[in-house]
Amino acid sequence: MKIIVDAFGGDNAPLEIMKGCAQAVQELGIEVLLTGRKDAILQTAKENAISMEHMEICDCPDVIDMNSAGTDIMRAGKNSSMAVGLQKLAEGAGDAFISAGNSGALTVGATFLVKRIKGIKRVAFAPVMPSAESCFMLIDGGANVDCKPEMLNQFGLMGSIYMKKVMNVQNPRVGLLNVGTEEHKGGELQHGAYALLKESGLNFTGNVEARDVPDGVVDVLVADGFSGNVLLKTFEGTAMMILHKFKSVLTGSLKNKLAASVMLKDIGALKKTMDYKEYGGAPLLGCAKPVFKSHGNADAKTFFNALRLTKGYVEGNVAGEIAQSVAAYKEKASQAEAAE
Amino acid sequence: MKIIVDAFGGDNAPLEIMKGCAQAVQELGIEVLLTGRKDAILQTAKENAISMEHMEICDCPDVIDMNSAGTDIMRAGKNSSMAVGLQKLAEGAGDAFISAGNSGALTVGATFLVKRIKGIKRVAFAPVMPSAESCFMLIDGGANVDCKPEMLNQFGLMGSIYMKKVMNVQNPRVGLLNVGTEEHKGGELQHGAYALLKESGLNFTGNVEARDVPDGVVDVLVADGFSGNVLLKTFEGTAMMILHKFKSVLTGSLKNKLAASVMLKDIGALKKTMDYKEYGGAPLLGCAKPVFKSHGNADAKTFFNALRLTKGYVEGNVAGEIAQSVAAYKEKASQAEAAE
Repeated sequence: MKIIVDAFGGDNAPLEIMKGCAQAVQELGIEVLLTGRKDAILQTAKENAISMEHMEICDCPDVIDMNSAGTDIMRAGKNSSMAVGLQKLAEGAGDAFISAGNSGALTVGATFLVKRIKGIKRVAFAPVMPSAESCFMLIDGGANVDCKPEMLNQFGLMGSIYMKKVMNVQNPRVGLLNVGTEEHKGGELQHGAYALLKESGLNFTGNVEARDVPDGVVDVLVADGFSGNVLLKTFEGTAMMILHKFKSVLTGSLKNKLAASVMLKDIGALKKTMDYKEYGGAPLLGCAKPVFKSHGNADAKTFFNALRLTKGYVEGNVAGEIAQSVAAYKEKASQAEAAE
Repeated sequence: MKIIVDAFGGDNAPLEIMKGCAQAVQELGIEVLLTGRKDAILQTAKENAISMEHMEICDCPDVIDMNSAGTDIMRAGKNSSMAVGLQKLAEGAGDAFISAGNSGALTVGATFLVKRIKGIKRVAFAPVMPSAESCFMLIDGGANVDCKPEMLNQFGLMGSIYMKKVMNVQNPRVGLLNVGTEEHKGGELQHGAYALLKESGLNFTGNVEARDVPDGVVDVLVADGFSGNVLLKTFEGTAMMILHKFKSVLTGSLKNKLAASVMLKDIGALKKTMDYKEYGGAPLLGCAKPVFKSHGNADAKTFFNALRLTKGYVEGNVAGEIAQSVAAYKEKASQAEAAE
């Protein structure tokens, strides 16, 4: 399997990206095609003794800035490491593309260069997040600020396939993010999405309140990209704040420091379950071929985890399964229409 | 000061509500007018040795169910403890009304029985929430699922006045909840609200990402009721999950239990800063007279805190200040229009 990697995406590129890749080549047995400035990549490898075994380079001069508008990728940024990587994926030069760069640009680039799966209205950013005992997928986590009910229905389908094929969840429970659990809750978008999800054939369990999400009540949480993004970032911010406060208790006095040292290992394990770096990032679901977004501040460990998940995304044939399901869904709908 | 209390609102009514009231009479020097079934109230007082000093009762037969639709309060529920209490407030029988009952019904009832402040488009549910070092107000936390930019602008104004008058924050920083900090982020609602807030004369600091909110970057966080509710409940759910995980580390082994006992006091203090019960609930801002919503599962302690905040809401003359500001804002706008 060959994964195309944006060597210049994210805050810690190219060094941490390349370290993550080298580890993945070793441990996951993948091949890597790096896109970016060849001279800088080779120099970084040399200076840091990073093996370039099973790594090719596709030389391209530009980088997409983290702050530039998403649509730049189709214009000023068309020779960037991100645009070239997506183009390479579209041409079949690799099995997947991964970047820790600008999310907006990646969404636009994936949509126009790699294209969407036939019948899929929008690609969605779909992070897997920790819950009390396990994990769940949030879809959409921020790619689409404005959504229509049919889009949310498709998010449920795509998330369900990913959780089954990559995360090995049997019959994933799909819930709709809402302000209450009763069917009438929410606005027009939620009412429309609820009606579609109910008839979708998915294991739809109804509306879910954000308060219950960390308890693991669903495997796939469907949301518009605005409120999904709010949930994602509130989760991160709250977890960071509490762990920080917790840390200041543990180190607040000599007495506490001594007591804390006894629990060090268990506290480390707790932090790990809350650490989003373990999850590496998020697939962009709905693209014709696997595209994965790693965290903007990804270090080597995070990027390695992202590559591991990207490998699962390819092996699970998620894009193919989504394409089949959408086609079957359309077929069924048109038959039902014809029968009326 | 006399506060009208829905004795039958919430999961723990009437006992915990009455205990909270008795404490508030003692410690805050307020008088209470309880609405609800007189016989049940008197019996509860007798059985639990609750003093009825400075407490009157307004007998009314019905209770609004937690699951009934908000609009029921104007029809089937018009003789409920909540509707009668709001009516009493409108008539001037007390200085404020407080209920731990059905939020939807309280919003509808407050709007139609107590009425909105002239010029205010919608009442908003505005909880004060803990941040890393202090606290902030979220407005709207869920009263209005669909919002217009002008509503968000008014939320900023109302929140700003409350934080100044009740929470003693000088020149409160007002931020707009968004998916990024750049001005162009978000959808139509955010673009419109941003433009209005920028010109509002408030201390508007721009867009805020949910991730940064717990760090205390703003004093007033403006949001539509849908995404505000998602933020509120994600915060609660995440905090509960982490504290729960933390607890299982502390009690996971004898060794850890012993170590934890050393830190018990500090851990208790930490939990307290994260405990929403300390905050008691949330004012409904925009009503012509003070209406306060306490938590549905409020116990005596929570309800006492809610009464303390309600007292501050009255003493700060928040409703009066909002009315003045809205009138001044309108005056200025019409002068500007005339000058053009």
